[in-house]
Amino acid sequence: MATSLLQDLLNALTRRDFRDRMPHPGIDGRPATAQELRLACEELLASDGEASSIGLARQVLDLYVTLDPEEVGAFFHLLLDAFGPDRAAVDTAYEAYKQTDSELSLSHLFDACEPRRQALLRRLNLAPGGTLDLVRMREGLLKRLRDEEALVPVDRDFSHLLSSWFNRGFLVLRRIEWQTPASILEKIIKYESVHAISDWNDLRRRLDPRDRRCFGFFHPALGDEPLVFVEVALTSEIPGDVQDIIHAEETPANLDAPTTAAFFGISNCQYGLRGISFGNFLIKQVVQELKQECPSLETFVTLSPLPSFRAWLDAVHHDAVEYLRLPDAWRETLALADAPDWHSQPESVAALEPVVVALVAHYLCETRNAEGYPQDPVARFHLGNGARLERINWLGDVSDKGLHQSLGIMVNYVYAIDEIENNHERYVNEGHVATSRGVRKVAKAAADGLKEKKQ
Amino acid sequence: MATSLLQDLLNALTRRDFRDRMPHPGIDGRPATAQELRLACEELLASDGEASSIGLARQVLDLYVTLDPEEVGAFFHLLLDAFGPDRAAVDTAYEAYKQTDSELSLSHLFDACEPRRQALLRRLNLAPGGTLDLVRMREGLLKRLRDEEALVPVDRDFSHLLSSWFNRGFLVLRRIEWQTPASILEKIIKYESVHAISDWNDLRRRLDPRDRRCFGFFHPALGDEPLVFVEVALTSEIPGDVQDIIHAEETPANLDAPTTAAFFGISNCQYGLRGISFGNFLIKQVVQELKQECPSLETFVTLSPLPSFRAWLDAVHHDAVEYLRLPDAWRETLALADAPDWHSQPESVAALEPVVVALVAHYLCETRNAEGYPQDPVARFHLGNGARLERINWLGDVSDKGLHQSLGIMVNYVYAIDEIENNHERYVNEGHVATSRGVRKVAKAAADGLKEKKQ
Amino acid sequence: MATSLLQDLLNALTRRDFRDRMPHPGIDGRPATAQELRLACEELLASDGEASSIGLARQVLDLYVTLDPEEVGAFFHLLLDAFGPDRAAVDTAYEAYKQTDSELSLSHLFDACEPRRQALLRRLNLAPGGTLDLVRMREGLLKRLRDEEALVPVDRDFSHLLSSWFNRGFLVLRRIEWQTPASILEKIIKYESVHAISDWNDLRRRLDPRDRRCFGFFHPALGDEPLVFVEVALTSEIPGDVQDIIHAEETPANLDAPTTAAFFGISNCQYGLRGISFGNFLIKQVVQELKQECPSLETFVTLSPLPSFRAWLDAVHHDAVEYLRLPDAWRETLALADAPDWHSQPESVAALEPVVVALVAHYLCETRNAEGYPQDPVARFHLGNGARLERINWLGDVSDKGLHQSLGIMVNYVYAIDEIENNHERYVNEGHVATSRGVRKVAKAAADGLKEKKQ
Amino acid sequence: MATSLLQDLLNALTRRDFRDRMPHPGIDGRPATAQELRLACEELLASDGEASSIGLARQVLDLYVTLDPEEVGAFFHLLLDAFGPDRAAVDTAYEAYKQTDSELSLSHLFDACEPRRQALLRRLNLAPGGTLDLVRMREGLLKRLRDEEALVPVDRDFSHLLSSWFNRGFLVLRRIEWQTPASILEKIIKYESVHAISDWNDLRRRLDPRDRRCFGFFHPALGDEPLVFVEVALTSEIPGDVQDIIHAEETPANLDAPTTAAFFGISNCQYGLRGISFGNFLIKQVVQELKQECPSLETFVTLSPLPSFRAWLDAVHHDAVEYLRLPDAWRETLALADAPDWHSQPESVAALEPVVVALVAHYLCETRNAEGYPQDPVARFHLGNGARLERINWLGDVSDKGLHQSLGIMVNYVYAIDEIENNHERYVNEGHVATSRGVRKVAKAAADGLKEKKQ
Repeated sequence: MATSLLQDLLNALTRRDFRDRMPHPGIDGRPATAQELRLACEELLASDGEASSIGLARQVLDLYVTLDPEEVGAFFHLLLDAFGPDRAAVDTAYEAYKQTDSELSLSHLFDACEPRRQALLRRLNLAPGGTLDLVRMREGLLKRLRDEEALVPVDRDFSHLLSSWFNRGFLVLRRIEWQTPASILEKIIKYESVHAISDWNDLRRRLDPRDRRCFGFFHPALGDEPLVFVEVALTSEIPGDVQDIIHAEETPANLDAPTTAAFFGISNCQYGLRGISFGNFLIKQVVQELKQECPSLETFVTLSPLPSFRAWLDAVHHDAVEYLRLPDAWRETLALADAPDWHSQPESVAALEPVVVALVAHYLCETRNAEGYPQDPVARFHLGNGARLERINWLGDVSDKGLHQSLGIMVNYVYAIDEIENNHERYVNEGHVATSRGVRKVAKAAADGLKEKKQ
Repeated sequence: MATSLLQDLLNALTRRDFRDRMPHPGIDGRPATAQELRLACEELLASDGEASSIGLARQVLDLYVTLDPEEVGAFFHLLLDAFGPDRAAVDTAYEAYKQTDSELSLSHLFDACEPRRQALLRRLNLAPGGTLDLVRMREGLLKRLRDEEALVPVDRDFSHLLSSWFNRGFLVLRRIEWQTPASILEKIIKYESVHAISDWNDLRRRLDPRDRRCFGFFHPALGDEPLVFVEVALTSEIPGDVQDIIHAEETPANLDAPTTAAFFGISNCQYGLRGISFGNFLIKQVVQELKQECPSLETFVTLSPLPSFRAWLDAVHHDAVEYLRLPDAWRETLALADAPDWHSQPESVAALEPVVVALVAHYLCETRNAEGYPQDPVARFHLGNGARLERINWLGDVSDKGLHQSLGIMVNYVYAIDEIENNHERYVNEGHVATSRGVRKVAKAAADGLKEKKQ
Repeated sequence: MATSLLQDLLNALTRRDFRDRMPHPGIDGRPATAQELRLACEELLASDGEASSIGLARQVLDLYVTLDPEEVGAFFHLLLDAFGPDRAAVDTAYEAYKQTDSELSLSHLFDACEPRRQALLRRLNLAPGGTLDLVRMREGLLKRLRDEEALVPVDRDFSHLLSSWFNRGFLVLRRIEWQTPASILEKIIKYESVHAISDWNDLRRRLDPRDRRCFGFFHPALGDEPLVFVEVALTSEIPGDVQDIIHAEETPANLDAPTTAAFFGISNCQYGLRGISFGNFLIKQVVQELKQECPSLETFVTLSPLPSFRAWLDAVHHDAVEYLRLPDAWRETLALADAPDWHSQPESVAALEPVVVALVAHYLCETRNAEGYPQDPVARFHLGNGARLERINWLGDVSDKGLHQSLGIMVNYVYAIDEIENNHERYVNEGHVATSRGVRKVAKAAADGLKEKKQ
Repeated sequence: MATSLLQDLLNALTRRDFRDRMPHPGIDGRPATAQELRLACEELLASDGEASSIGLARQVLDLYVTLDPEEVGAFFHLLLDAFGPDRAAVDTAYEAYKQTDSELSLSHLFDACEPRRQALLRRLNLAPGGTLDLVRMREGLLKRLRDEEALVPVDRDFSHLLSSWFNRGFLVLRRIEWQTPASILEKIIKYESVHAISDWNDLRRRLDPRDRRCFGFFHPALGDEPLVFVEVALTSEIPGDVQDIIHAEETPANLDAPTTAAFFGISNCQYGLRGISFGNFLIKQVVQELKQECPSLETFVTLSPLPSFRAWLDAVHHDAVEYLRLPDAWRETLALADAPDWHSQPESVAALEPVVVALVAHYLCETRNAEGYPQDPVARFHLGNGARLERINWLGDVSDKGLHQSLGIMVNYVYAIDEIENNHERYVNEGHVATSRGVRKVAKAAADGLKEKKQ
């Protein structure tokens, strides 16, 4: 019975035995230099794609991780300066194109313009484990990019190839559960970025109960490494409090036919794949999977944080937002939230609720960033996917992080299959924010309140 | 216990259920036209990579297969004419580059030169099963290319992307055996191109005995479809007769520690991946696998056909090869092979052997094609991989095909790990043909024989 | 990522490599004798269950298959005579029990009565592959049992242990499809006993279309060997013609939500497990699986042969059934079926239909065997499972076999979940045959017809 | 590509979905009573093995776990009293046997003597998950057995069936590694009984390094539950200190070809399977696996505790062992070990070493229990398997447990393939303890020392 494709993948990617290569020893036991690495890259490019290239590629990747930090920087600059296209060839090809004006000459021009970096990256990808190493290499590059804009062309090459290799068509959706290999689960603990997982018991509580689901995208060449994953709770109504979900000790006994799937955490795992989007595909495929498994599900909804609300509110508070003036009564009320434990004081809580909820509604529905979209990145993600802003939940996350980011507010976005397309279109073209009637009402009242006082 | 990566791959790729889409119905039940398809492609490109693009991509691929043959041709020409790069943008980008002379401007020029075809192909790849559909589409393109050279730029785009996607780093080596799923095995029957497999019993005879091995490369996005596979017999000596191997009824009882692995068939499976080479990687990885499984193996050798020897011999015979004159005695002897059943006549066989073997030695060692390499494609493949021409086997394949192609000659090429690198180098740089002492001797004698008579 | 349980099973059971043992050479290259085997068995029993026992067990099983037929018989008699319980110990234990009358003494008596054969079989089961070998050994025993009733006690021991080992709790339900390993599929071809599968293409036609299903029970220790399997067609109505199903070239295009699952073949695979029933469990579990996969299914029905109808009819025809007299008109009509190609002659067909259908209805509903149950074994199986006799299909199987067994009649039994329990009870207790209204009507008319004429 | 056997196993055993049964609610929400359970058992036995029996079996097992502790006891007594064999039938069968004296009548007597408990247990095993539930049930029984010897006959029935079901032929060897499902790994943490695993990081340190191995036996019907597992370190010499192994932070860089496999922990996992031995099979199969994977291995050795040495030494110390008198000097030295931190005081350590090692050698080589075998259970296990006592390691385990059990002594037993058989034979027949020359020397010296003083 079949040595399976999986087994092969596994053998190739995760088996440890005494054939394993030794850890990277550098050159003569010392770290390599950028120049030495450059020479190795040239040698790799000069090799002819034969089996020996695999060994050379492995060697380059092994040497790379021995580089000291400044040599890493120097190496990226060498990639920039020494592995671009051959400019003379570009000029020649351009001239040929201008003479013949043919599609073929354009094709040759395209080839001439392709930086040698791209060929190099493809060669490096020959090595076993090479794809992951290249993702990690780009991680280092992205960090440097913040201060060294000059490296942008190098990143464009990484980005070009990684986008092609991580095409949706090559990704694999996989359920993550307590029966999943520990080598994968430890990465879930590591990469969960929305509501931190404290340890293996916490992880088990998130995965094992029969009303919990977790799915991730994987790429065959990355083996155990998830690209992105989403955590889901199956419930009988739209949840408003994430702590209830995370700390639930047991499944409600009567949950036989859940009606609602609540996505309460979506985490991107590979910083080196920044800008290559999977989250939207993931949510929509998970919706399909869940519907198939559990036909009683009717509502697919997120329970999402509002990571930049507090920053905006602070700006408003300090009159940094030009057109907006907070009514004095609201200012006073908001001052209650300066007390460190305000959320456990019933009066503060009661007073703050209407004000904060109104401001969140206004923030999400009315304010825009420079490109004309909502200011909150999570809102942009879900609304851009075609979801609808459904509900604003007061004290939906009273963790330190939740209080700090959004005064404890959590938001639900609903993915309604028959309106996704339309919402998406109107969002992209008009910056339109799809909202439920309830949110709309609050937003309108908030606008009135704010307007009134502004006079 | 893990829902495995494999299961996901499988679920995604091979599961059949009632959610399956219906077979392609075209537009209103009639085949699509090239123009309609073009419009669908434009729509796909205009979509924004959202989940809805997946559906559009699937639709385009489904419509494509409904095209009538002439519409297929028209569609490729539309790809050529309407999906190239934006020429104005190319010119602008070139000017910007000439002004700034910066790497960034070159990067923009590269982008401007990228034909829209490539973006289109990447989008099409979003569809489930899209990769295989694109490989099949290129198959159709390659066939047209023979007569319509104008389509070359289109093929360059296919080739560019497929090379990147089918990078060695993404391939998976997999043993193929009698326990392998039938859906894969039927493809082995279909794709075996060297020594045809007549039916499932024949297949079983090739895979199941404990002295047989078969390995293939697979790509995760292609599921059941092999890319290339190799058939191996484990033996106690270098075999010379392929019929013995193919029709062997049972494993020699005393074969406890085979010394020799004989590769007797290498078949490329995807015509649509022509020009993207896997065979060399496959052989070398299989050598490693076998060594690990069976440490007694010492010799790795092929038993290979000589597909174009007969054609060359006929040319020589008709004095079409300028510099070469066959001695009259040889001509007379060769005439014996005109009898339909010469190979069952002991005298003909005895007379022909020295002459044919000498000519094969000469053909392989001395003659060259326009690029300076041997004329036989199989020889070029193995010698280019760094193998050594080891032995020429008289009556090594007396099947109709074998007699027709090479008067029944089969050849052994040895893959000797410690000389591969050097052989490969010399072959590439000097066109040097690595040979065993025995073959060298025969080739020399042949050269003398031919020279003598040429005077 | 996990070396999986499956892999281990597979490694253990199906991997072929050069560590494999050589085929059974007997003793000094000649077949063993029953006496020699007996000695080996004694040695195995004397060993202490240590790892070395595994080797001894393997040896006994390997020697067994070298026995000549008469030695096989002799060996079974040795098992009978020399491997029973120790009779003195039985007597002693019985006396002890009569004195103490304790449960413990009974437990010791039970031990004393256990034939040494059972310990021997458990020891033999230690060998890799031993379970299958023992099933095969019982196969040989069952064949001899027909003529040698003396061997019954030996079979009771086999049966006792196999029943325990093949407890339903240890069986695994597995879908069989075109993606299933060829090593399993070849066994489906071999074991299909209802409607023979002619070759791999025929098999593919049965498994691959999206409206076909096949499921089997497997036992982990038997690896590739199925125990029993069932073939299913998903349809939009209860089918009456099995040839339509078997030779269907394609799935009806409009079959999006099948309402009916038709079980058209149930095959037991291991003759050596005769008397250990799995078929009822299989059908009921498959009903659950299908409902889960395809919620539109409402009707679960068989399309079954009537293997012994013709024999009964012949007996009636020859007045061998005492109480039953065929009306003369019926006799005349039935004579039409003596023509070899009657079923292609419209008039014969039309005349025969009412008579044969009436007789089948009578045969199934009214006649009984000595134990008070229907005479047809297939009917006993399904009715015993709680199914209902639903419909009698004229010319439901015009294959040679179908015509021969039942004049082409096929029968539907419906498994209606809410009446299974009750049907089963009444069948077991009263021999009640659950029937549809339609069949009941026909049976009644038939009874009247027969009665009338009997006067 | 195949829904695999594994998948089926998994689906059957580990998948959680909304079809799962609710947790056992008892009867009307209250715990069941023993009498109620008895009635359910009778009903199950009266059912006819049909599919409905599966549901009944599940129900009985679910009710069982709701029993209060005293009702559990009552239930076992009901099993004893009400589910024995039918005594009248036993008597009748015995008489029939005495009359006919036939093997068949003995077979019937055997059947008559089989307690109804066995049929009941087989029926209970029909339920999904039933096997594990029965193992757990026996766990409860074994605990009661200590005080209630009357229940022995009940346990004999459990033991009889479990031995048959957990026959070596049904077990599956499986590597346990960091890629293994977390649901299995958590059980490794839970069941490790020799050197406790503190948490998941500790577990990773035991499994993940390339010089560590872990293997376990699994039974297909028990899914994730291991039966027994062994932890192995690959080293370049026989290790003497277990803390070095357990706390090793990294693999020695130069360990390319380990020569030694050290088994440093063997844990039985299922108390309910007590008395059904797997450990010996496990060690021997793991030796084979490791040899295959890593041909450089030459020595297979344990690093074992000495769990009952200290108890023996205390007895000797208090002159409780009749024939043995400690020399006064030894007594004085041994008193040093009364200091709580003696093992960190170099002088105490130096003084104690020769005395303690001598006593261990004497204890293992010379002393015997009532049956004539060594007193130490771990020694009995390995020597009984045919291993040789190789070396006594002073301060081989300075954990609290190690110091407490054996004054920190650890022992190596070598499994030498070519002497296992012989050692085992001599051990079983003569109580012979196979020892290395080194240990023999020490034992002899110790004997002399002890003898001398005894006078």
